[in-house]
Amino acid sequence: MAQPATAASSALPPLAISLGDPAGVGPELIAAAWALRESAALPPFFVAQGAGLLADAAEQRGLEIAIAPITDPADAQAAFAHALPVLGTGDGPYRPGDPDGAGAQLALSSLTLATELALSGAASGLVTGPIAKALLAQVGFRHPGQTEFVAEACRVSAQDAVMLLAGPSLRTVPLTVHSALAEVPALLSADLIRRRSEIAARGLASDFGIANPRLAICALNPHAGEGGRFGREEALVIAPAIAALREMGIDASGPHPADSLFSPHLRDSFDVAICMYHDQALIPLKALDFDHGVNMTLGLPIVRTSPDHGTAFAIAGTGAADPGAMIAAIRMAGEAAARRAAT
Amino acid sequence: MAQPATAASSALPPLAISLGDPAGVGPELIAAAWALRESAALPPFFVAQGAGLLADAAEQRGLEIAIAPITDPADAQAAFAHALPVLGTGDGPYRPGDPDGAGAQLALSSLTLATELALSGAASGLVTGPIAKALLAQVGFRHPGQTEFVAEACRVSAQDAVMLLAGPSLRTVPLTVHSALAEVPALLSADLIRRRSEIAARGLASDFGIANPRLAICALNPHAGEGGRFGREEALVIAPAIAALREMGIDASGPHPADSLFSPHLRDSFDVAICMYHDQALIPLKALDFDHGVNMTLGLPIVRTSPDHGTAFAIAGTGAADPGAMIAAIRMAGEAAARRAAT
Repeated sequence: MAQPATAASSALPPLAISLGDPAGVGPELIAAAWALRESAALPPFFVAQGAGLLADAAEQRGLEIAIAPITDPADAQAAFAHALPVLGTGDGPYRPGDPDGAGAQLALSSLTLATELALSGAASGLVTGPIAKALLAQVGFRHPGQTEFVAEACRVSAQDAVMLLAGPSLRTVPLTVHSALAEVPALLSADLIRRRSEIAARGLASDFGIANPRLAICALNPHAGEGGRFGREEALVIAPAIAALREMGIDASGPHPADSLFSPHLRDSFDVAICMYHDQALIPLKALDFDHGVNMTLGLPIVRTSPDHGTAFAIAGTGAADPGAMIAAIRMAGEAAARRAAT
Repeated sequence: MAQPATAASSALPPLAISLGDPAGVGPELIAAAWALRESAALPPFFVAQGAGLLADAAEQRGLEIAIAPITDPADAQAAFAHALPVLGTGDGPYRPGDPDGAGAQLALSSLTLATELALSGAASGLVTGPIAKALLAQVGFRHPGQTEFVAEACRVSAQDAVMLLAGPSLRTVPLTVHSALAEVPALLSADLIRRRSEIAARGLASDFGIANPRLAICALNPHAGEGGRFGREEALVIAPAIAALREMGIDASGPHPADSLFSPHLRDSFDVAICMYHDQALIPLKALDFDHGVNMTLGLPIVRTSPDHGTAFAIAGTGAADPGAMIAAIRMAGEAAARRAAT
């Protein structure tokens, strides 16, 4: 599988992290990740906006951390060892569990700044904290989610920004995401499957060091349709996409019945499972890797990861949120940035 | 949760086991389960048909076991300690991995006999070995699967024979099973959800000793449709079913986003997850409990379980098949039979 990545070289620029919704668990988990930077071997990072808010969130969690305001990302490297670097003067009150429009505005300002710095190269990658989409929409955010926002900023079609979900046990790609289940069959086409699988294969090579990744393509229907008895999408749409991928030299297999593909016996037989819909990709990942799941966007000119959990307003400020996924997202972004820089 | 069941009382009749397809892993796993009867604390059972075949399958697996031909299920109790009891004279050659019509006929004869004996009360429950549905269809079997066959034999509508999948970590009920994913939304109704959930709740009480089982009802759409943004089935179909169940005094909750429901944090919050489609129920179960999953049919006058795996023709006769699920199916049937007998 993957070659071990060297820890992000100190020659690389730092990672940029966006706050996420300030009333969610984002700020406290960023602070918790910084506090664990040495044991978790995290690369240097800075946060876009929210200096006071981060200090309050850390204190609420019982963490004694210093904040280092910076004005240039390049200053993050030196500050990181002794303080959490924060760039930008945007800020607001810390009211965990009590989101509002001003908080959504701050989340958007943080995301915008962090994305710009990753695009300019001042940051080696982008890690986004969890946002509340409905609240962002109320303050004028017109994208379905952060992935589409980042894709547009990168001038990449949202169709070609491919979501990879990665945990210690499993990597999955949902080909459709925020669509009603009834709409999924019509959204799938051989071209969509082929195109996104190709992007996934390239991403596993560039960002994970897997030269010839093994792609397991899931079936849509139970038992892969059992020879057409319940569903023809396997024959009409998925198998042609697999044939096209194989012709391109990509190690794609399937269509695999999705129920058994994630069993312990089969999980080692592929590097990524290409899934037809949201829950097909997310159910196994959250069942196996809940506290460590990372959402990574492949197909972009920049490295972008995110912890695979929401704002968790209900437990924000209680100290109950696990920083595992945030730590994993930061580490994965650092490793991917180091791999890209080395090639 | 459940009260511990006493080991199936010796006063109970034995369990009846059907061979499954003789070219699959069924016969060898039955033999392996018998060989482990003491360490696995299995209740007495007998196999319907296939004495010679079972002996050959055991030998191929390196098991030295004696076969005890019996003519009355009541004789199984005494024989069980020193030999694998087999009732019926049907038999055939053992050709692992090489299924044919004669084998399918034998599988059907075994299933028919074992079902009859469970219905008559001569057996305290039925455990079915894995069959190949396509082969059975070729020899005139007109049911979609064994569950529907057993339901008809019990004079229960197939709609009211509810599949429960149970492993050490999780229990799930798929409300729809062998249907194309595109057909699932139209198959769901509040009445179907309510009716099958009610049967599941009663079954958990009668067969597992869970007096007031907690039912987690899954959403159909990602994020439970996010307030109608992607799908309305949660509001139109699932929520009304949950309300009706709660009015009946059943502890039903939801609709829960299915991706996070099976995470370690939430798995202990319910006794069974009611799932809208096959893979929603099977993906988490096989990811977590692959070698120990049991398929139990609730809503029948008889106890019926099955190991939750197929014929596995590719590894039949190689010794690679794990008997864990067969052992779990036998033990679960014995415990359910003991609970029913005690009430």
